[in-house]
Amino acid sequence: MKLSDIGEQGLLKIIQAFCPPEIIGDDGAVLNITPGTSLVVTTDVLVDGVHFSDGTTKPEDAGWRAVAANLSDLAAMGSTPVGITVGLGLPGEVEISWVERLYEGMGECLRQYSTYLVGGDVVRSPLKTISITALGEVAPHQAIYRHTAQVGDAIVVTGIHGASRAGLELLLHPDQTTNLEASTREKLISAHQRPQPRLDVIPVLQNLFLDNPTKFPVSGMDSSDGLADAICQICRASQVGAIINAQQIPVPDILPSNNTPAWLTPSQTLEYALYGGEDFELVLCLPNPAAKNLIAQIGGSAAIIGEITDDAQVFLNSPNKQIPSQVLTLNRGFQHF
Amino acid sequence: MKLSDIGEQGLLKIIQAFCPPEIIGDDGAVLNITPGTSLVVTTDVLVDGVHFSDGTTKPEDAGWRAVAANLSDLAAMGSTPVGITVGLGLPGEVEISWVERLYEGMGECLRQYSTYLVGGDVVRSPLKTISITALGEVAPHQAIYRHTAQVGDAIVVTGIHGASRAGLELLLHPDQTTNLEASTREKLISAHQRPQPRLDVIPVLQNLFLDNPTKFPVSGMDSSDGLADAICQICRASQVGAIINAQQIPVPDILPSNNTPAWLTPSQTLEYALYGGEDFELVLCLPNPAAKNLIAQIGGSAAIIGEITDDAQVFLNSPNKQIPSQVLTLNRGFQHF
Repeated sequence: MKLSDIGEQGLLKIIQAFCPPEIIGDDGAVLNITPGTSLVVTTDVLVDGVHFSDGTTKPEDAGWRAVAANLSDLAAMGSTPVGITVGLGLPGEVEISWVERLYEGMGECLRQYSTYLVGGDVVRSPLKTISITALGEVAPHQAIYRHTAQVGDAIVVTGIHGASRAGLELLLHPDQTTNLEASTREKLISAHQRPQPRLDVIPVLQNLFLDNPTKFPVSGMDSSDGLADAICQICRASQVGAIINAQQIPVPDILPSNNTPAWLTPSQTLEYALYGGEDFELVLCLPNPAAKNLIAQIGGSAAIIGEITDDAQVFLNSPNKQIPSQVLTLNRGFQHF
Repeated sequence: MKLSDIGEQGLLKIIQAFCPPEIIGDDGAVLNITPGTSLVVTTDVLVDGVHFSDGTTKPEDAGWRAVAANLSDLAAMGSTPVGITVGLGLPGEVEISWVERLYEGMGECLRQYSTYLVGGDVVRSPLKTISITALGEVAPHQAIYRHTAQVGDAIVVTGIHGASRAGLELLLHPDQTTNLEASTREKLISAHQRPQPRLDVIPVLQNLFLDNPTKFPVSGMDSSDGLADAICQICRASQVGAIINAQQIPVPDILPSNNTPAWLTPSQTLEYALYGGEDFELVLCLPNPAAKNLIAQIGGSAAIIGEITDDAQVFLNSPNKQIPSQVLTLNRGFQHF
């Protein structure tokens, strides 16, 4: 059945199943915010054929990824989610099942992070578009910005980088020989299709500085546009430099299933980690003792990968010569136009 | 010059001129909300060729209208604006001047209502799309909903209905003979191109009930999808009926410039008022004495047009026989698909 068969009212009924009942049916949603917190707002627009497409992405995965990217921005600001709004542009001939699967994917991600769809709009459009605005809340002094990194801060990544890009490669070229264990392949593909925004890190970070209720010496952002981009953005905003140790960057564990050569060379893996993007981990700068404490508490593949310096540049030190040691710049980041 | 010539960074520089400097450059914007207020959120998506087009709408007017529609939703909820986010999808070949004029129109409207652009996203898209999320704040007990209309409430409209639709007609058929005074023509076109969301009504409404800080017996919505639609939506949500007096609906004053027949018949004018849409006035239900007080204070063309009843239907009484007296239903409202 197609959207044009059920019309706007039919579509709204489907969507409203994903909303708390009390916020449905008015010109806007009314939400309660914890008194004393600041509001955090972030917006993403996704376009069919540019950011997702039926050829490479199931609608439920497109929904999950769209929500995850926005929740990751909330985590990057140190906030916890209040809700999201979804603005959809849809052609009349789109299958109802496509819309349902999109919302199911969004709903799964929202439920995992205990948050809700709180509003939106659906309009006719010749092109499928998804616009998400995510709302979060944060105690004003615990907001995380890019411009407050301090010389001497340890640079922490909360997990593996490069897995999403490797997963995309597997999806784009399903027939290539990779010698990957099935479980490794699944992990990489899942990293791409179902990224996990690191909202779990926020309460841990907040607990680290509980003894001083006004001090929160944490800066950072998420690595959605690549790890190199994140480090360079933080350094530019904070007017500092950094030294990054290539061998400390946690990358996917891509072991061949037998004595054949590994699918990705160490150099390719590091390229994916630096420039692949969409890992949706956090890149955080904070004093070294707190950084170690943070890593111990969140576990997984979190690691200190370098240090903020008073240099004018971000230097990647690569002693294992996976790639040449080099100055990282913003130029290789993802350009939207 | 085209968007592809200046790239994402160049575009961001243009847009950032419309943002408060302190909120630029992070994964999300951090906003202060008045403690104790609830957050109001509303979202609209506009698509080139469906909701605006270069053939009929200048980019600055498209920008104004997009912002105005969202601010009107905030007014409809009884809230005052905190800011808006704009998600844009743009083809690389779009002229920079188009983007600048769009933001200028948005900025003019935002400034008139003392609010700001607080975030957004710009992405490549084969089709121009504009997604706006507006954020407002309201004391929890002063939020205006559709579902709380009470039998006996007076139904107030805050201004003229049908002017936007008449203005559109003039824009679509610029060559038709209308016998309109130039000033009347300008007013109608302006009603369509530069609608004024009725945020000015909110503090007046709030002041009416200051003597009882928990009582706020006001329900309603805006008339963006037409006056008939608004009344029917309120009645359906509140499970009440209404009687509307056709001759009390304020319509545009369309006098011919001499003794020629009027451009619009009274019947056509009333059709535009009921079904034209996009007047962005408020339709409010409140006790009759307060309604009279409200009208006296906001002035202009505000009027009581009827009363909430315990009927199951919305009855339009048309003693002047402009159109037959009739039951109004939701079926004639604007269908998006």
